[in-house]
Amino acid sequence: MDRRKFVSALGLGLGGLALAGCEQKDCPPADGQQGSVEPDNKKPVPQTYEWKMVTTWPKNYPGLGAGANRFAKRVEEMSAGRIRIKVYGAKELVPAFEVFDAVRQGSAEMGHGAAYYWKGKHPATPFFTAVPFGLTAQEMNGWLHHGGGQELWDDLYAQFNLKPFACGNTGTQMAGWFNKEINSIEDMKGLKMRMPGLAGEVLAKVGATPVQLPGAEVFTSLQTGAIDAADWVGPYNDLTFGLHRVAEYYYYPGWQEPGPTLELTINKQVWDSLPADLQAIIRYAAQSENQDMLDEYTARNNAALNELIGKHGVKLRRLPDDVLKALKVASDEVVEALVADNKDARKVYESYRKFRDESVQYMGVAEQPYLNVRSELEG
Amino acid sequence: MDRRKFVSALGLGLGGLALAGCEQKDCPPADGQQGSVEPDNKKPVPQTYEWKMVTTWPKNYPGLGAGANRFAKRVEEMSAGRIRIKVYGAKELVPAFEVFDAVRQGSAEMGHGAAYYWKGKHPATPFFTAVPFGLTAQEMNGWLHHGGGQELWDDLYAQFNLKPFACGNTGTQMAGWFNKEINSIEDMKGLKMRMPGLAGEVLAKVGATPVQLPGAEVFTSLQTGAIDAADWVGPYNDLTFGLHRVAEYYYYPGWQEPGPTLELTINKQVWDSLPADLQAIIRYAAQSENQDMLDEYTARNNAALNELIGKHGVKLRRLPDDVLKALKVASDEVVEALVADNKDARKVYESYRKFRDESVQYMGVAEQPYLNVRSELEG
Repeated sequence: MDRRKFVSALGLGLGGLALAGCEQKDCPPADGQQGSVEPDNKKPVPQTYEWKMVTTWPKNYPGLGAGANRFAKRVEEMSAGRIRIKVYGAKELVPAFEVFDAVRQGSAEMGHGAAYYWKGKHPATPFFTAVPFGLTAQEMNGWLHHGGGQELWDDLYAQFNLKPFACGNTGTQMAGWFNKEINSIEDMKGLKMRMPGLAGEVLAKVGATPVQLPGAEVFTSLQTGAIDAADWVGPYNDLTFGLHRVAEYYYYPGWQEPGPTLELTINKQVWDSLPADLQAIIRYAAQSENQDMLDEYTARNNAALNELIGKHGVKLRRLPDDVLKALKVASDEVVEALVADNKDARKVYESYRKFRDESVQYMGVAEQPYLNVRSELEG
Repeated sequence: MDRRKFVSALGLGLGGLALAGCEQKDCPPADGQQGSVEPDNKKPVPQTYEWKMVTTWPKNYPGLGAGANRFAKRVEEMSAGRIRIKVYGAKELVPAFEVFDAVRQGSAEMGHGAAYYWKGKHPATPFFTAVPFGLTAQEMNGWLHHGGGQELWDDLYAQFNLKPFACGNTGTQMAGWFNKEINSIEDMKGLKMRMPGLAGEVLAKVGATPVQLPGAEVFTSLQTGAIDAADWVGPYNDLTFGLHRVAEYYYYPGWQEPGPTLELTINKQVWDSLPADLQAIIRYAAQSENQDMLDEYTARNNAALNELIGKHGVKLRRLPDDVLKALKVASDEVVEALVADNKDARKVYESYRKFRDESVQYMGVAEQPYLNVRSELEG
């Protein structure tokens, strides 16, 4: 009998001891000991866990949902089945925007989504996903893992009975789809644009009308003219939605989401109850998936952009300088207002801002000039 | 007794069964079963492994060596001590450039280094680290993990009895330290510059004299005037070496190493012998560390560049366009020559090249214009 079979044979019968679905008050005390049974030989048997992960994505959604699935599979593989995670799409157990509460209250052990959805819970949350003109994926990872960001995130989410991890990134998004050309800031005025969160507030400041819409309604709303423009994600996801069939112009760069981090959340009591090896498995499964999702987007966006331009004749456009400048001024105001009345949010912002300021200088001699030189010489 | 103590109590006595240091012919057959013992209760006990990892870095070297140490620690944590890896610096067991052979021959189970050191073994190896004007870190990860690169690497290294993983990246490096300004390609002629590998061949084509030197000798060689210029890594590592004390000008961008991937290699028989859970633990420990090293460089390069400029008055310079253009032309020739006579190397190159060509287009609407816009508006 090899190691796999050994673990499997011991572990499979213990599902009844898992924490899945229990209410906080019913949960067994979490000391990693509860699952032990005493077979004939009096040796303890490793506890197994069967967990629910609720997500803010449609089930199996390309990129985002695929990342949640991969994370769950990695944990199961590395733990030899001691942790099994069933992934639920939005609305299967709870609606997308109830994921945060479902996990903190313990009706699901884990969640996958994006921190900026919880701005209503705390104004610091957007810094852990993306803010307009903020950090790229590479910079977010640097800030979180070696710049003090993770510690601030842990402190913030502990107040909500959650332990957070970065678990995915889309890379720099596109600025969105438009049914007319944008030649100056005047063209933004009165524009009805699907744009969530802080970036929606920024649009309002430059005279556009932000519209809040779930992704699934973007196509129809553009098609019927209910909206004039929409942001979604980037070439890979946008092609899947067919947005090129209902809008002619595809604008860059994605000032509103330069490198959004997706989050894994774990109920803090569940997390604290785990033995060190299973905590390590979750931590590094999340970090490996944090990279893998970006890798997938980087590879598939390439191919999707080629298809959008070459096959579907999409017109690529860069936002004009005066539009970007106005968006930047408005963005700084929106972010300042966000943290104005909250000491904890300001502390997070100051750490984020310091990292960004240093990185603007460093990227100016690293990836940025390299990419510029390469494209000039290849072009 | 919790899970940790359980595993530890069973596992610690089995060190004598580990594969460490055995010659191939002496190694026990690798079926994951060898370590099992039959205690009173007739239950098999998980095998434990005590391994050696040889590396091409000085022991505990910042960034590179720290990444090897973190990888080993992660595997031990996730496996609850079933795998323990002792990390050796260069020369402790074998010299840096014998790491590849030590691992394929089984005198160490694992190695950490960079694939381009093994160009003498096979001309395809540089594509798995970096080639001049090639892929950035984000692009390397996209190509390896979702663009077919890993499969090509697996095929190549299987010929050498090795299983490879990406396990670290420095990000875009600097072009190097110079004791005079470089104002045109004429200034490169006759320049003695420390520059290893393919990039050294490129320098020779533009009239410079490449010098091969281990990192530890760079400082003294610049100080004595034995060389006029040197590449090393980037602000974090270069500051540690004190290169700002022996050269005045610090040039960018790092055309020669736009995003070098560090590699983890495992003896293939050792790898094939592992149960699926331990294979998964190694795979995702490597991928998590692959990101974490880049995160560390991204964070520390920021701060180090600030110190180099603000405290030490280093003069930052961008290589002039005509120099970069000449280096690009020469780089294309060097890479073409590399794969000219080897079918397998050409196959790898074609996959890499296709990914790069698509990515030049995609990055042109993603991270690249975003970083440009942000620095213009912040500046």
